[in-house]
Amino acid sequence: MSREYDERTTTFSPEGRLYQVEYAMEAINNAPCAIGILTKEGIAFGIEKKIISKLLAKIGESEKVYAIDNHIMCAVAGLTSDANILLQNARKNAQEYLYKYGQPKPVEELVEYICRIKHSYTQVGGLRPFGVSFLFAGWDKIHGYQLYHSDPSGNFSGWKAHAIGSNSTLARDMLKKDYKEEMTLEEAMMLEARVLFKTMDVSELSTDRMEFSVLRR
Amino acid sequence: MSREYDERTTTFSPEGRLYQVEYAMEAINNAPCAIGILTKEGIAFGIEKKIISKLLAKIGESEKVYAIDNHIMCAVAGLTSDANILLQNARKNAQEYLYKYGQPKPVEELVEYICRIKHSYTQVGGLRPFGVSFLFAGWDKIHGYQLYHSDPSGNFSGWKAHAIGSNSTLARDMLKKDYKEEMTLEEAMMLEARVLFKTMDVSELSTDRMEFSVLRR
Amino acid sequence: MSREYDERTTTFSPEGRLYQVEYAMEAINNAPCAIGILTKEGIAFGIEKKIISKLLAKIGESEKVYAIDNHIMCAVAGLTSDANILLQNARKNAQEYLYKYGQPKPVEELVEYICRIKHSYTQVGGLRPFGVSFLFAGWDKIHGYQLYHSDPSGNFSGWKAHAIGSNSTLARDMLKKDYKEEMTLEEAMMLEARVLFKTMDVSELSTDRMEFSVLRR
Amino acid sequence: MSREYDERTTTFSPEGRLYQVEYAMEAINNAPCAIGILTKEGIAFGIEKKIISKLLAKIGESEKVYAIDNHIMCAVAGLTSDANILLQNARKNAQEYLYKYGQPKPVEELVEYICRIKHSYTQVGGLRPFGVSFLFAGWDKIHGYQLYHSDPSGNFSGWKAHAIGSNSTLARDMLKKDYKEEMTLEEAMMLEARVLFKTMDVSELSTDRMEFSVLRR
Amino acid sequence: MSREYDERTTTFSPEGRLYQVEYAMEAINNAPCAIGILTKEGIAFGIEKKIISKLLAKIGESEKVYAIDNHIMCAVAGLTSDANILLQNARKNAQEYLYKYGQPKPVEELVEYICRIKHSYTQVGGLRPFGVSFLFAGWDKIHGYQLYHSDPSGNFSGWKAHAIGSNSTLARDMLKKDYKEEMTLEEAMMLEARVLFKTMDVSELSTDRMEFSVLRR
Amino acid sequence: MSREYDERTTTFSPEGRLYQVEYAMEAINNAPCAIGILTKEGIAFGIEKKIISKLLAKIGESEKVYAIDNHIMCAVAGLTSDANILLQNARKNAQEYLYKYGQPKPVEELVEYICRIKHSYTQVGGLRPFGVSFLFAGWDKIHGYQLYHSDPSGNFSGWKAHAIGSNSTLARDMLKKDYKEEMTLEEAMMLEARVLFKTMDVSELSTDRMEFSVLRR
Amino acid sequence: MSREYDERTTTFSPEGRLYQVEYAMEAINNAPCAIGILTKEGIAFGIEKKIISKLLAKIGESEKVYAIDNHIMCAVAGLTSDANILLQNARKNAQEYLYKYGQPKPVEELVEYICRIKHSYTQVGGLRPFGVSFLFAGWDKIHGYQLYHSDPSGNFSGWKAHAIGSNSTLARDMLKKDYKEEMTLEEAMMLEARVLFKTMDVSELSTDRMEFSVLRR
Repeated sequence: MSREYDERTTTFSPEGRLYQVEYAMEAINNAPCAIGILTKEGIAFGIEKKIISKLLAKIGESEKVYAIDNHIMCAVAGLTSDANILLQNARKNAQEYLYKYGQPKPVEELVEYICRIKHSYTQVGGLRPFGVSFLFAGWDKIHGYQLYHSDPSGNFSGWKAHAIGSNSTLARDMLKKDYKEEMTLEEAMMLEARVLFKTMDVSELSTDRMEFSVLRR
Repeated sequence: MSREYDERTTTFSPEGRLYQVEYAMEAINNAPCAIGILTKEGIAFGIEKKIISKLLAKIGESEKVYAIDNHIMCAVAGLTSDANILLQNARKNAQEYLYKYGQPKPVEELVEYICRIKHSYTQVGGLRPFGVSFLFAGWDKIHGYQLYHSDPSGNFSGWKAHAIGSNSTLARDMLKKDYKEEMTLEEAMMLEARVLFKTMDVSELSTDRMEFSVLRR
Repeated sequence: MSREYDERTTTFSPEGRLYQVEYAMEAINNAPCAIGILTKEGIAFGIEKKIISKLLAKIGESEKVYAIDNHIMCAVAGLTSDANILLQNARKNAQEYLYKYGQPKPVEELVEYICRIKHSYTQVGGLRPFGVSFLFAGWDKIHGYQLYHSDPSGNFSGWKAHAIGSNSTLARDMLKKDYKEEMTLEEAMMLEARVLFKTMDVSELSTDRMEFSVLRR
Repeated sequence: MSREYDERTTTFSPEGRLYQVEYAMEAINNAPCAIGILTKEGIAFGIEKKIISKLLAKIGESEKVYAIDNHIMCAVAGLTSDANILLQNARKNAQEYLYKYGQPKPVEELVEYICRIKHSYTQVGGLRPFGVSFLFAGWDKIHGYQLYHSDPSGNFSGWKAHAIGSNSTLARDMLKKDYKEEMTLEEAMMLEARVLFKTMDVSELSTDRMEFSVLRR
Repeated sequence: MSREYDERTTTFSPEGRLYQVEYAMEAINNAPCAIGILTKEGIAFGIEKKIISKLLAKIGESEKVYAIDNHIMCAVAGLTSDANILLQNARKNAQEYLYKYGQPKPVEELVEYICRIKHSYTQVGGLRPFGVSFLFAGWDKIHGYQLYHSDPSGNFSGWKAHAIGSNSTLARDMLKKDYKEEMTLEEAMMLEARVLFKTMDVSELSTDRMEFSVLRR
Repeated sequence: MSREYDERTTTFSPEGRLYQVEYAMEAINNAPCAIGILTKEGIAFGIEKKIISKLLAKIGESEKVYAIDNHIMCAVAGLTSDANILLQNARKNAQEYLYKYGQPKPVEELVEYICRIKHSYTQVGGLRPFGVSFLFAGWDKIHGYQLYHSDPSGNFSGWKAHAIGSNSTLARDMLKKDYKEEMTLEEAMMLEARVLFKTMDVSELSTDRMEFSVLRR
Repeated sequence: MSREYDERTTTFSPEGRLYQVEYAMEAINNAPCAIGILTKEGIAFGIEKKIISKLLAKIGESEKVYAIDNHIMCAVAGLTSDANILLQNARKNAQEYLYKYGQPKPVEELVEYICRIKHSYTQVGGLRPFGVSFLFAGWDKIHGYQLYHSDPSGNFSGWKAHAIGSNSTLARDMLKKDYKEEMTLEEAMMLEARVLFKTMDVSELSTDRMEFSVLRR
């Protein structure tokens, strides 16, 4: 039944759903899990690493966590090549702001900027949505530390703790139970490790399969 | 039977209906209910809040009520990312008017401006309608306090009291019965609380699940 | 059989019909009835009002009759948002003419201008016809009082008395029988009331459900 | 069998036919009949009038015969709104020629100009042919009185006497039999009346249902 | 089987054929036959005339043979309105060359120019090939008298004698048998008459049904 | 099975094939055979001539071998009108290079230039690949004599001896067996004659059906 | 089931997959195997050569390994004509960088540049992905020797040793087992020879079927 309405970005289903956007979200549910936790001291990302070939060379930055500007980093789940395009755009936009106004771009404005691009690919024919979700971690003078989540529809929202990627439902439940506002960064990373251990469903807790990143003012 | 005519924005059905626009309206019927009441003292919005994660961080403004300019705010039902694009547009347009003419843009003109954008997405191929309805509350020198409703077709109309989102039919019936022209803002919010209590179909009236906003001159 | 040819504006059926234009006309047959009568003293519109919520606020003008310029007004049947776009266009065009030539735009030229826009949406792919009919009432030095009808195809013609919207066939028959060239404006409105009473098929003649507008030099 | 090839202007059928152009011609066969006869004294058009409402107001010119310039007029069969666009174009083009060269545009060149527009709508995707045929009557210094016929394909040809619209085959046969080169304008109109009487298949010859126009130097 | 590949200009069939181009050639096989013969004294065209209405007025030139420039003429088979567009283009191009270089455009270059236009309509989506073949007769200083044939694909080739249109296969066979290099123009026309008599399959040789044109330096 | 993926240039089949490009290559397998052999003394083309009408006039150059510049010629197999467009482009490009840099364009660069055009028609929707293969023969200071083959995909490669067109597989086998690096031009043409004799499958070796061209510094 | 979603670049399948991109990758699995190994002394490519005609002339560079700039070379698997376009682009971009900044473009930036082009062909309708994978070998001051792999999706990643093309899974397994960080260039080529011997599945190890290239600072 749904088949008639799910091939084009520009078609609503009779229930008012945009199937292409929902399918793009599926691409994210198969990606490695990424967790972000907001603390008073800063923001910590905990990322699941696929068992990847030892032949893979680490040339520049992490596989799944990218710097956008000095005060903003992000974790990615979904199609990496889609993410690259958006990140290159975001970096350029952040630099232009810095150059123009002499101060770093507020985090929320940068997130909004990326989401506007994402959205534009969900309403015009002959395009497909970006198959990628982000967790953005940033700090600015207006709101201090901030953690945002954005999905393929171009939606975004602020979180204290959030998870994207495979088994993210389970991860979110654990976060909801164990998150505490007064956590230190170290406790946050400990929590992330525990959550990843569960979502990855492995018998032994090994740091080989995890990666942690921290954003501090 | 309707299946032949409902996949494209640019196809009329034999009965003269535009199914894609109607499907876009479906997206709104599943959104949380939003109510607006016009009083002599100002305009009050009452919004249903989904039980959302306590982990969600409130960074800037309300989830469903947005300021467009000092004299205009709006409540949203439907696809949030679609709404964001229109609101960014509206804010920029309001600022430009202020800069150009040295006075705030009349409310009706701003509503018309947004509806023109909405309409243009219902008549051209390769686009889809905006899946979002608005309640606009505003004040200007010409008409005083005003409450408008706009839907995905680009239609708009002025109301004394109106409701959008899930169970809005029930909400509208209650409003019709209980609305009084001489209401105070407080009485309006009381009425909204009672209506939301009914439409949300919960056993206990809790303010956790509601949010109120007021626009006063 | 007709199914093969009725999904695109740019496809003729084997009998030489444009189904999309005909379907757009269907949208009008479900709209409230609007009647216009040309008299020596001026032009009178009689409009059916749906029983609409008492909560609806009358902010600016009538629901179905709009001023385009000082010397032209029109009644609308069909998709209101489609009509809005055309009317905004028409108003701007009338103002430009006034500014450029220092005198009001002749009525027929303005009608032609709108019909040219309407027609262009019936011959190009990726668009849909405007789902709206108009009755234009105007006065100018060339032809005096004039009453025009335009439909979604971009056709227009001058009338002494005409009706559009639901039950317009019945209404036209009554007009044909009872219209007299020497009618006063008051008699014209009386006739309109009688016709609307018939087309609305209600048991009691109430002015709540009708609205009258008059254009006089 | 023909069904595969008849939905697009840009598709030849295996027999080398353009069905969309042929379907557009069908639109003309249902239109009222129009006859043109070329005489030494000038050119006469005889047009069938549908029994139209007595409420129809005659504001400007005839329903089916239009002036393009002082020296050219035309009779129309088919979609009136399609014809309007072409005629507006033609009038503007004729005025520009007059302004530029200080003399009226030769009739054949104007006909060619319109046919070039018509043709361009038969070879490009996303458009449909103009559903209208013309009889052009004109006089210029080069060829004297001229009568042209143009159809939706963009073809045109000169005639001494020709008919378009419903029952035009019958009308052409009668013209072929009874046309004489030395006819006066009056005799030509008499012949047209007789032909229309036959094609309209009415029992009584009434001038109510006919309209005559004459072009003289 | 061929049905899958024959609706678009831009689709090759599995055997490497372009069906839309082949279908366009069909349009030509139903057109009246046209013959061209190259002699030392000049080039002669012999054209079949359909029994056309005596009411048809001969205003300008022949029905099927057109002058492009003083030194080039052409015979047409296929869709006349398609031919008109190409001929108008060709005439303009020839005049521009004359104006720019002060001498007539070489025949082959003009033929190439037209064929480039024709070809461009066979390789781009949303267009259809020109349904017309030409015989070009011309003289220039480089190659003397020349006779070219071009078809809807944009192909062209030089001939001593050639035929296009209905029964052209039969006509070409007769030409092959009876053509002699040392023919006079008169003999060429006699041969054309005989060939046309055969291809038209009429019982009596009447010049009413034929038309001859000659190009001489 | 392959049917789903072979109608558009922009669709990969599940096995990673581009069927439209492969179908375009079919157009070449039905074209007359063309052979090129590279020797120390120069490059020789041997071309199969279809038994063509003796009425065909040889106006300019050979039917299947074209000069591009003084130092480059090419043999063609496939759709002649497609080839014409590419050759006109190539000639212009070669002249521009000569004018700009004062020396002939290196052969490989010109071949690359044509292949870039060819390729662009294999990756964009609404176009079809060029249905033509080339053998390019050229000489320049960098690489001396060079023989290239390019196919509809935009691929090209250098060869010592190569064959395109019908029966080219058989021809290539014979070339592989009998080609010798130290061949003279005359021996090369003798080999080509023998190969063509085989591929044409005629009983008698007649030079009527063959054509030879030579490129020498 | 997958059939509904695999014909367009712009359609996600319900599982969030982009089939057209995956099909483009198939084109690579049928291409000859290419191996790259990063050592302290430099980078070595080992390439499988198809048994190709001895008639193929080696004019410029290797068949499958191309220089992009003095400090970057690459090995190709997939559609050669697709690769050519990207390489021409890359060379031009590298030269522009050199000219603008006076130093060679960093390797990673050049790889990113190519991947951005690749990606843009996976998100826009009417295009198809590039059917080609690359191994890039480069040296710059920032990261020293680097080996990158990029696929049709526009993804890229750094490797110590990697293989693309047919049997690449087998090749990668062997590399994982036998690669050592302290390898010399010679040992790397020996390993590549052994791997190719296995993937090519031939009985005898012959250097005829292999080709080696080395990039050294």
